[in-house]
Amino acid sequence: MIYAEYNGSSPLLPSVKDFLKKRMETHLFGNPNAIHSIGQKLSSGMEKSRTVVAEKLGCHPDQVIFNSGASEGISNILFSILEQRKENQNIIITSPIEHAVIPNALNYYQTKKGFQVEMVQIDEYGRVIPESLEKLLSLFGDKVALVTIMAVNNETGVFQPFELLAEICKSRQVEFFSDTTQLIGKAPFNFLDSNLDYAVCSGHKLGALTGSGFMLVKDPTQLLPLVFGSTQEKGHRGGTQHYLGIETLAIALKEFAEHLPNLPRLEESKFKFENDIKNTFPQARVFGDQVKRLPGTTLIGIPGIHGQAIQIELESNDIFVATSAACSDNQPETSKVLKAMGVTDDVGRGVIRISLGCHQGEAEYALLAKNLKAAYNKLSKIHSY
Amino acid sequence: MIYAEYNGSSPLLPSVKDFLKKRMETHLFGNPNAIHSIGQKLSSGMEKSRTVVAEKLGCHPDQVIFNSGASEGISNILFSILEQRKENQNIIITSPIEHAVIPNALNYYQTKKGFQVEMVQIDEYGRVIPESLEKLLSLFGDKVALVTIMAVNNETGVFQPFELLAEICKSRQVEFFSDTTQLIGKAPFNFLDSNLDYAVCSGHKLGALTGSGFMLVKDPTQLLPLVFGSTQEKGHRGGTQHYLGIETLAIALKEFAEHLPNLPRLEESKFKFENDIKNTFPQARVFGDQVKRLPGTTLIGIPGIHGQAIQIELESNDIFVATSAACSDNQPETSKVLKAMGVTDDVGRGVIRISLGCHQGEAEYALLAKNLKAAYNKLSKIHSY
Repeated sequence: MIYAEYNGSSPLLPSVKDFLKKRMETHLFGNPNAIHSIGQKLSSGMEKSRTVVAEKLGCHPDQVIFNSGASEGISNILFSILEQRKENQNIIITSPIEHAVIPNALNYYQTKKGFQVEMVQIDEYGRVIPESLEKLLSLFGDKVALVTIMAVNNETGVFQPFELLAEICKSRQVEFFSDTTQLIGKAPFNFLDSNLDYAVCSGHKLGALTGSGFMLVKDPTQLLPLVFGSTQEKGHRGGTQHYLGIETLAIALKEFAEHLPNLPRLEESKFKFENDIKNTFPQARVFGDQVKRLPGTTLIGIPGIHGQAIQIELESNDIFVATSAACSDNQPETSKVLKAMGVTDDVGRGVIRISLGCHQGEAEYALLAKNLKAAYNKLSKIHSY
Repeated sequence: MIYAEYNGSSPLLPSVKDFLKKRMETHLFGNPNAIHSIGQKLSSGMEKSRTVVAEKLGCHPDQVIFNSGASEGISNILFSILEQRKENQNIIITSPIEHAVIPNALNYYQTKKGFQVEMVQIDEYGRVIPESLEKLLSLFGDKVALVTIMAVNNETGVFQPFELLAEICKSRQVEFFSDTTQLIGKAPFNFLDSNLDYAVCSGHKLGALTGSGFMLVKDPTQLLPLVFGSTQEKGHRGGTQHYLGIETLAIALKEFAEHLPNLPRLEESKFKFENDIKNTFPQARVFGDQVKRLPGTTLIGIPGIHGQAIQIELESNDIFVATSAACSDNQPETSKVLKAMGVTDDVGRGVIRISLGCHQGEAEYALLAKNLKAAYNKLSKIHSY
């Protein structure tokens, strides 16, 4: 079995499963905010995890705020920035390739809160064009409340120039948020070096327990809470903490750090795989293959062969991939990311996304190549559209 | 070991631990919103859990919205109601005995959003006085945006007249929210019969996996999402679902249903225990003992013996209780709940909260009685204040 859908959600890591199996044998469950020794032990476990997260991602433990994951983190950060904007600021700048949570949130701010949403442009490789951001910033001046542009695209795996975009926004004193959901745990990331004011993470993208996650916030005193509560997370995020999830976040980030040396090998195997497919099927197209992408992500298609047909064919051989789209969109049409890259339906409907974990590589790509070739050969005889 | 802090947080139930240990052996982890068979199996597991939740709590599966727990649920419901209020509605009515999440949220709406917060009165037994709500509703008329009064108090375990309060609000077409965090999983609850429009639940209060929970919403089309995302939870709550937590919610609610016949026995053992202590120490006071309380909750104190001293003494015998306060407040002063009941510091500082699980009873109370008597005898020789 090859699960090649790590950008959608990662299976629990073996180290996380082992930890949880042993963890179930203990009696250490209860209220982590109580003063009794069980509470103190649980609380100390969470603080150790906070230190690991901070260490692995280059920030101070006080800047780590645990929550339920990236969608909550994004909703919280957008809420906090937009609620505290200056009165005349009604422009939000974003990109057409964001994960659904951003356009859906901005649709709310647009229709219910009177904001105007402006889009930067994307080049043919799937990257935001920084000049188009500069143009919009010049046009709208101090009316801009927020620029929100992702760090890494979830479909193509293409890195956005988020450090540069952060710099551009900083120089104009405009609030900038970059969705790091697909970056953390898939490629090296250092919060301090990134020049970002916020980052978000979902545990399930790292192989940690579902329902866990965190925000990194440069200055937590500036953050409005979205989930109210008592003194948990120093008042920044209410609710009894998901302490089991938090314990696994540290384990997953530690395992990721151990796999870091494997990333170049993973990428090399991917390039070999992609070239193999392109050599065998000259009409095949790998999106964003000329620019920096996540080591384990390939968005690939052949015009005329429907992505979903390929996905089903591969699944019959126990290989699990996604069609182009993200977490929960599996529409049989060209994704908005590809549309923004200028990809037309004849190509766009034929794509699948293959995304591997950072511990995988050559063996998986060899099997993928074999099965993908067989599927392409089989299905090219019966063009699906 | 006796863990008597179930109102703070329940340890994982044995059935939940067993399930998770076996669950770790499977390969069924991944993106629950994908169209491949792993996604479909995970999604089907979540829908089965939704049906169990709906069945056990008397609502339609479409009315169950999974989230990270009660603090998120409360924040979401308050946000949804207050964002959609009529323009002239700026009054929020609440009680002085709510869990911290409510006053902290209302503090935000008061200081940042211009709402005015009004308090109903509490009787000496710790119950909201319905007439005081009627008086406030008459006084403020159609300016009332929301009435938010809890179903069961977390410290005393005292049932509030929430069905009656809901009726009073309905008859005046005022929005009513009742925090059911301490009710669900501790006493029978039927959403339809309750006449409530919303209910909230935290999995960790039931012995399900931490970080899990749900809202019950009579008309989900009226709900504004707090956490944006894609199509998860039909757009009502974004983010890849905590599917492992969701699976355990069904297990915990099923186990709770099996323990329902034990609740009268639990309560009987509690009364015996409380009477034993009151007979031995006539100065001891059990708060709310003349009105309906949760079967397993006792808030008890002796003037002059500090609650924290008792808590530490009991802990030395492996018995874990809380001082009066809730999830994360362990202040050495009289709680606001007791203050609202007219309790003065000489009594209020001496309390501990004993809260058992629905599967416990006589054996635990016998040990608690023995140890609490020893602690009172020991500490009464050295008055702590």
